[in-house]
Amino acid sequence: MKRTTLLILCLSCFLAAGAENGYDLWLRYKPSGNQTYRQHITAVLTTGSSPTMKAVRDELTRGLSGLLQTAITHSTAVNRDGIVIAGTPHSSPLIHNAGIAPLLQQAGEEGFIIVTKKIGDKKCILISGNSDVGVLYGAFHFLRLLQTEQPVEQLHIVSTPRIKLRMLNHWDNLDRTVERGYAGFSIWNWHTLPGYIDQRYIDYARANASIGINGTVLTNVNANATILTKPYLEKVKALADVFRPYGIKVYLTARFSAPVETGGLKTADPLNEEVRQWWTKKVKEIYTYIPDFGGFLVKANSEGQPGPQDYQRTHADGANMLADALAPFSGIVIWRAFVYSNENPADRHKQAYDDFVPLDGRFRPNVMVQVKNGAIDFMPREPFHPLFGAMPKTPLMMEFQVTQEYLGQGTHLVFLAPLFAETLQSDSYQKGPGSTVAKVIDGSMDGHPLTGIAGVANIGSDINWCGHPFAQANWYALGRLAWDHTLSSKQIAEEWLRMSYSNDERFIGTASKLMLESRDIMVQYANPIGLHHIMGTSHHYGPAPWVNDLNRPEWNPVYYHRADSTGIGFNRTATGSNALAQYHPEARARWENMLTCDEKNLLWFHHVPWDFRMKSGRSLWDELCYQYYTGAERAGKMRDTWQTLQPYVDRQRFEQVSMLLQIQHEEAIWWRNACLLYFQTFSKRLIPAEYEKPSKTLEYYKSLQFPFAPGI
Amino acid sequence: MKRTTLLILCLSCFLAAGAENGYDLWLRYKPSGNQTYRQHITAVLTTGSSPTMKAVRDELTRGLSGLLQTAITHSTAVNRDGIVIAGTPHSSPLIHNAGIAPLLQQAGEEGFIIVTKKIGDKKCILISGNSDVGVLYGAFHFLRLLQTEQPVEQLHIVSTPRIKLRMLNHWDNLDRTVERGYAGFSIWNWHTLPGYIDQRYIDYARANASIGINGTVLTNVNANATILTKPYLEKVKALADVFRPYGIKVYLTARFSAPVETGGLKTADPLNEEVRQWWTKKVKEIYTYIPDFGGFLVKANSEGQPGPQDYQRTHADGANMLADALAPFSGIVIWRAFVYSNENPADRHKQAYDDFVPLDGRFRPNVMVQVKNGAIDFMPREPFHPLFGAMPKTPLMMEFQVTQEYLGQGTHLVFLAPLFAETLQSDSYQKGPGSTVAKVIDGSMDGHPLTGIAGVANIGSDINWCGHPFAQANWYALGRLAWDHTLSSKQIAEEWLRMSYSNDERFIGTASKLMLESRDIMVQYANPIGLHHIMGTSHHYGPAPWVNDLNRPEWNPVYYHRADSTGIGFNRTATGSNALAQYHPEARARWENMLTCDEKNLLWFHHVPWDFRMKSGRSLWDELCYQYYTGAERAGKMRDTWQTLQPYVDRQRFEQVSMLLQIQHEEAIWWRNACLLYFQTFSKRLIPAEYEKPSKTLEYYKSLQFPFAPGI
Repeated sequence: MKRTTLLILCLSCFLAAGAENGYDLWLRYKPSGNQTYRQHITAVLTTGSSPTMKAVRDELTRGLSGLLQTAITHSTAVNRDGIVIAGTPHSSPLIHNAGIAPLLQQAGEEGFIIVTKKIGDKKCILISGNSDVGVLYGAFHFLRLLQTEQPVEQLHIVSTPRIKLRMLNHWDNLDRTVERGYAGFSIWNWHTLPGYIDQRYIDYARANASIGINGTVLTNVNANATILTKPYLEKVKALADVFRPYGIKVYLTARFSAPVETGGLKTADPLNEEVRQWWTKKVKEIYTYIPDFGGFLVKANSEGQPGPQDYQRTHADGANMLADALAPFSGIVIWRAFVYSNENPADRHKQAYDDFVPLDGRFRPNVMVQVKNGAIDFMPREPFHPLFGAMPKTPLMMEFQVTQEYLGQGTHLVFLAPLFAETLQSDSYQKGPGSTVAKVIDGSMDGHPLTGIAGVANIGSDINWCGHPFAQANWYALGRLAWDHTLSSKQIAEEWLRMSYSNDERFIGTASKLMLESRDIMVQYANPIGLHHIMGTSHHYGPAPWVNDLNRPEWNPVYYHRADSTGIGFNRTATGSNALAQYHPEARARWENMLTCDEKNLLWFHHVPWDFRMKSGRSLWDELCYQYYTGAERAGKMRDTWQTLQPYVDRQRFEQVSMLLQIQHEEAIWWRNACLLYFQTFSKRLIPAEYEKPSKTLEYYKSLQFPFAPGI
Repeated sequence: MKRTTLLILCLSCFLAAGAENGYDLWLRYKPSGNQTYRQHITAVLTTGSSPTMKAVRDELTRGLSGLLQTAITHSTAVNRDGIVIAGTPHSSPLIHNAGIAPLLQQAGEEGFIIVTKKIGDKKCILISGNSDVGVLYGAFHFLRLLQTEQPVEQLHIVSTPRIKLRMLNHWDNLDRTVERGYAGFSIWNWHTLPGYIDQRYIDYARANASIGINGTVLTNVNANATILTKPYLEKVKALADVFRPYGIKVYLTARFSAPVETGGLKTADPLNEEVRQWWTKKVKEIYTYIPDFGGFLVKANSEGQPGPQDYQRTHADGANMLADALAPFSGIVIWRAFVYSNENPADRHKQAYDDFVPLDGRFRPNVMVQVKNGAIDFMPREPFHPLFGAMPKTPLMMEFQVTQEYLGQGTHLVFLAPLFAETLQSDSYQKGPGSTVAKVIDGSMDGHPLTGIAGVANIGSDINWCGHPFAQANWYALGRLAWDHTLSSKQIAEEWLRMSYSNDERFIGTASKLMLESRDIMVQYANPIGLHHIMGTSHHYGPAPWVNDLNRPEWNPVYYHRADSTGIGFNRTATGSNALAQYHPEARARWENMLTCDEKNLLWFHHVPWDFRMKSGRSLWDELCYQYYTGAERAGKMRDTWQTLQPYVDRQRFEQVSMLLQIQHEEAIWWRNACLLYFQTFSKRLIPAEYEKPSKTLEYYKSLQFPFAPGI
């Protein structure tokens, strides 16, 4: 009997082996190798009948059926050991009387508890929270324990999010192109909404709920006012209805000039009464469709977007006008601090700080200012933004970029948790040592109840959602860190690998190391020693440090690297742009002296002579060569390491990643050769003889064109 | 023991029940209900080691494992009954000596045989052909027999394609938008080619091979010369390498002005020696990458595309220049006859005939002229193109549109086999009665060895390839009819339904009826009684018969319906444009007399008074109302009928089709109301009282805007 069973299972495995297309993300629920789970888990009992509790029940059924390979019994009474009970105390006397009130107090509004409890004489697993969505988060966490093969005999877990708004920002246009999207096109098929609900919308909500994401901005910050018209609001409503049971609120980008473009007004001046009324009415209309609408995300007076400064008003004037319209419905405004101006001769690094610090304290309580992790633009490595800690009266929201605009786009394996963590753990010193960016963001430093982390999504219409199979890990990491920024990158990598691939320790050890090193490697072969913004124009694909003919000075790579016959790097000290002055003295101490500056950011803050002696003993030029060559070599090793993991990975994903790592290695060499050949025209020094010579000329690299590169 | 097995299988079924996303098309290979197959099929023996024979082996393994739910044994000797032997006589003495030479002679170059044979004393199933790709087609056909639960005890099948070139035309742009695409974006991810081979490319080739498609034009007829540059040819090569084992040749669209745009020449005059040399060199270069490159498809001097007429040369001059470059490599030119000109005052219906008939006999032997099924443009119902039968010295290739540009786009269930068959079975009478379009196309009428049918693909990046789950049937039908145009629409519908959904007879009976009626229903609610080209501008979505302000007269719906106070319809008789004169007298006899004209095409050929008495006894106006109301009502019945099929369909696809049929019904009502309200402004007659009144005004329908409709 056993034999037949196994044969059939193996056949299923055989058939499935080549067919892992990645659609299921980290929610694959494949048969668990832990045979004890079937003893500890015998049935499911859910209480309550809300759509969210239906989602809990469906997910536990789906997950446990797959993991335990058995049909899951739904129990209505605690009549045996091993029942998984899920619900809130409000919906069930059973849970109300289970003696978990003190634990639930710790869980807060969205948190959950998972505890082993005797109910009567039966040993049960209790998943609870103070809200249905808390229970849903708990259910996903419980499934994660099984997916990662954790023991479940004695559970005592209390988890509550450290950040209130955990959001995705989709830079999705209404024509379904995605700005900086490398995974196909927008998953929002506006044309067939609201009548057609793509299964993707539901699975998107499931995936987000599984990692605690509770908000999504559906549209690009480079906004189109059409989204605010009636036919589109009906479409948005349909999505909001799908997402609501999963605890996800919908937000939209508000084009500041919408009153002119779709409202027929002559102005969008935020102090104009007609304009204010237009927005008040529009917001009211939105809430008739979506009673829990989250609010607006706004990019204003930046890179061509309209804004209050068009009318000689401040960012605060603009944000507050929208905030006033949203306040009656508890909606919020998220106002982006990513602003810089052609007319402003100051180092771009400084402009957001200059613009926003004076406005601290002048925003309505339902306004957040959303700040990119660094002052330039999502570079592979970037010092934390000087605004963090500098606007104590304003809740600042973190904006990370999950999509890999500058980090290899769709073809490079780069795990971003270390990048996110690096920023979060940076010390602003604004209230003494330990004033980390994380403490600014989670509200603990300045006592803000409104807190948030947003990630620019890397999600598209590709079957596997994210293009590169490992890019899924960055979506996962964003959610997990937004829930708990104290999680280590290693833990996140391992969780994701276990859920997405295999619990085999040999696989986990090697694959997590590969992930954890990947971002450092990428920095090394593309932007070592603090170089930044030296990529191709417009599409940002590949190296192009030579570009110097774009309309705006700060769009040109030469603005950032400033290579000349004496050296390379951007002097942002007091003898240069003095951007360093925007940091707290103790924070900038890490960087302001060229001799002691953290070398990872050396060229970010200093223009350094070619013969400068690095800590390695090499000259700067030789170090640059060393870094580029080492980075490219390590990219090749990533590819080779992956080959050793073939026994643990299904055929389709193994081959996908193999091909992509080969591309990554080739592109790492491209970065290395193109940059070194170009910088060599200034340094006039040889590439050390131990390195293989670039096989192509600088002219060749300059000649490369990518007329249809994605994501523009 | 049996019990356990069944339990596990049921669990798999349970888990899979909600998860049919349509990616597997008609190659799902789900467990067969026919229990005798496991007796008749015990092992697989393939001979030969070519990539094509590897594909045969893989497909038989995959298909039989799934269908029979057993691990398939690969045998190397005929040591038992029930071995499926696949190979050519060239690769195996076993097959060479099996006594099938006479059958193979009938099979031709690409055909196959599937016969039950004793080999020694073992009863085997022999799949063979004269080429490896013939064997591959046979293997897919054999799997189809099992998928549709045909008996396999005594097989004696010989099948050979009636058409030589069975092609898809992708109107895919290099930026991945798809002109007239309603299933997402292009599956060709040019950016990551050639390094990254998407699994889709392989599954695309499998799906095409399974229905006999042997050529694909990768790029839009509205062409971009970039595809002919080196970096892109390297990408095309990668696709060609994937497709080759599946018998699929790659073709490209040639932008006529490429020598100017990418070659730096001052002219693209086809008689200019430099231009001829440029193409000769370019073709030679292409063949270094793709030794079996199929050739060029060209849209020239039509809708803004450049062409030979820009230099006062003829279509033949242009086609022959390219043909001369391709001839040394056995490549061909497919030159489209879809031309019409702003400057030409003649009825657009007549222009292709006027342009091309005089050129008959002036094309090189490796030129085909590709003609749309009708003279206007893929209308829901269209009389056959008068060119068919009128160019006996030129091989004409049929161009069908599989993507539903005018037939409900992505949201309407419209099975196109009846449309294809209607054209193919039309009698041109050019060589006496029975001179069907099919005989023109398959070469039998005029003795052409070069024959072809092309379908404008409906394939995109949607997970299920085609957007609407039932749109897959149109891809399937195109391939099956190109292989054998004598297949009935009913047989094709049933095959597809059995492979894609269920062999349950209750399901098949109802679902095939629904499919077979669907195109008539669509014509009824959108373009009844011969109305045509009255759709929305540019995106062609929904009704807009009122449009009269476009730049070119023949782009306006009013050009086609000519409604006025006296009546409606386009007089194409001798008293009108006389387009009918382009047909053979016996063919046009069906249409030229208003009193006897086939009413399905009445308004196509006649301007008919509102009070004209129809065969039903109704006036034309009342008949128009009857058709529109009946069509919309029947669309509603399609939706209701589908609901009865829930027991036979997995949840995901059932719900997809349910939502789409609801949209279809709403849009049918939209068509009905918008068209009748508009035509009523001319007829000044009431909509008969028995019909419900349109709920919206004509102004409402005119006001609808679809700024981001797909496929433009």
